[in-house]
Order: sequence, then structure tokens, then C-alpha cells
Amino acid sequence: MELLKERIRLEGKVLSDKVLKVDSFLNHQIDPVLMLAIGEEFKKRFSDCKITKVLTVEASGIAAALMTGLTLQVPVVFAKKKTPSTIPDNALVGSIQSYTRQEPVEIVVQDEYLQPDDHVLIIDDFLATGEASQGLLSIMEQSGANLVGVGIVIEKLFQEGGHTLRKQNIRVESLVQIKSLKNGQVIFA
Amino acid sequence: MELLKERIRLEGKVLSDKVLKVDSFLNHQIDPVLMLAIGEEFKKRFSDCKITKVLTVEASGIAAALMTGLTLQVPVVFAKKKTPSTIPDNALVGSIQSYTRQEPVEIVVQDEYLQPDDHVLIIDDFLATGEASQGLLSIMEQSGANLVGVGIVIEKLFQEGGHTLRKQNIRVESLVQIKSLKNGQVIFA
Repeated sequence: MELLKERIRLEGKVLSDKVLKVDSFLNHQIDPVLMLAIGEEFKKRFSDCKITKVLTVEASGIAAALMTGLTLQVPVVFAKKKTPSTIPDNALVGSIQSYTRQEPVEIVVQDEYLQPDDHVLIIDDFLATGEASQGLLSIMEQSGANLVGVGIVIEKLFQEGGHTLRKQNIRVESLVQIKSLKNGQVIFA
Repeated sequence: MELLKERIRLEGKVLSDKVLKVDSFLNHQIDPVLMLAIGEEFKKRFSDCKITKVLTVEASGIAAALMTGLTLQVPVVFAKKKTPSTIPDNALVGSIQSYTRQEPVEIVVQDEYLQPDDHVLIIDDFLATGEASQGLLSIMEQSGANLVGVGIVIEKLFQEGGHTLRKQNIRVESLVQIKSLKNGQVIFA
């Protein structure tokens, strides 16, 4: 997606060999017009699929997921991060590793919002080690809903998340793939 | 906003005299089409104002804020909830009370995303005690940016948040105002 590459070139900040900061348009300040274009691109990429629901995880996945839901005209569900004591009984629960807290975080979806007859597209802003995606997959399995695929705004190819998902025979569509962040440079695939 | 009242009547669950659950379309599962209508309504209500930025707090404020930003064609900034050890130096910080954790949570905006020449509309899903709004106001004051007003999807009039804001001479536009949730019934103003 050329529009997105252009924004990454202009505004992305390479903080280390592994970390690209895109806070100015994707996950702290959000450009809603770009986000709508991202939603339209996901609709196009998955146009061969029946989709009844979009699933993501709070907070930084919500914007891309919401715009994808808008273009597809389907509801968007976001998994909530919870401390164990606040998880309700009828919840589908996945576990992800938090890099800031260095301990697992539970992500939770109420069971009524993912049904066995749902066809679900998972959307997230970044795919790196794939922790968030695996947590959402675990929730998907508990729900019995059908997974259509995973749509990612920015995939870091040099981390293993995308490889792991594709080995699981999951369709992954990434709008931008980054091969390397070495020497402060963004190298696209 | 009649469309929103209708959804609350159909799908809202009164959990107590103070708690209305609207998880099925507003803050866990989201109806993006309704959310776009909400964004358009906020644009209309504040059509007499110059707005350069929309500000909200993660996670449940993001959807309404994003659609408001889309209709206004301006960037959306969401304050992030942080543990004190992860707050960067150049951050604007507010404090809000968390009802689940019973301890204050810091909300943080990087200073570069709120500038003195910005005209900011704060958007949130609920206005109850007003904790989140006051935290965002504190961030606004530190930034030097101009506050246009506060747009709320659902205001609970029987809690003090809206009253406090209006006493501070802040313009508050609520799409729906709820007078009472007593006896399991939603009474609109």
C-alpha cells in the first residue's frame, strides 16, 4: 500500500533494529482519513471472503479494525485487557505477553459476541512476534467461529509472528511488510 | 439523538441504579455505522467552532473520536493509560480513578501532539463522575491548546461529571442524557 509506505518514510521513527514508531498517524495520534483508506484496502484484499465480524485487541488495533468494519458494514469486536480478578464467567480468554510489564496480560471477549456461525477477520496494527494474534486465535478457537484471515497494517518480517501464522495455514494480508530496520533505515520488502 | 436512544432501548442492559451496559454496540462490540452517525452528529453540534484535533482516552473513547475526526477531517489523539515507570519525559500526564483497580491510573499524551495553536474537541463514550474528562482537561492545560468543548455519547445526569464541567464554563454536548436508571429502567432526559 503505497500511501502507507509514504507515511512511514515521512514520519516513521526507527528507535532500534526492532522498533518502528508510527505514533503520529497510527497508534497514538491517528489520521482517520488514512485509516479509512486502510479499511478499504482490507475490504479489497478479502473481497473473496464472507465476513460477518472484525476482531481486534485494544487499544491500538481499534482504529484500523473500526474502519475495516465500516467499509464491510459489519460489527467490530475488540478484546479487552483485563486483570484476572475482573474476568467475567462467560468470557473467552487469551493470553499475551506484555513487553512493558514483562508479565502475561489476559485478553477477553464476551462469548455472545463471537458465535459459531460468525466469519471473522482479525485486524491489528502491527505483526511482530505475533503474541497478540496468537491470543486472539485462542479466543477464536474457544468461540467456534470461523477464521477468515488476519489483516495487518505493518508486518515486521524479521520477527517470527507472520511466519508462525502462515505455518498454521492462516491467511495473512499485510498492507506493508518491513524487511529490516537496521542502521536506522526502514527497508520495505 | 433518536437513533442512539433507540439502540439503548433495544440493547442497553441496566446492571444497577448507576450502571448501563451498552457493550453490544458502543464499547466492546462496536457498530461502525452507528459510530459514523455519532461522528456526524458531533460535527453538526460543533459546526460553529474551528477544530484542529480530537482528543480522547483509550480504549472505549477511540471509536466515537475516530469517526468524529473522520467527519471533521482532523487528527485524533488518544491518551494512553500507563504505569508510572513507563511514562516518557516529554509527556503530558493526567490522573484518573480506575473503578476496577481502585487506584489512580495515569493517562499520557506526548506533548508534540497537542500544541498551543490547536483547537481541541474532547470526545468520550460516557460521562458519569467525570474522572476521565478531568484527566484530559489537566493534559489540555499543560499543553496550552485551546479547548473547544466536550462531546459525550451518553451522559448520566444523576452523576456529577456534567455538572462539574458546566460549572467550569466548559461547553458539553451530550448526544443522549439519562436521568435515571432506577428499577432497571432507562429514563431519558
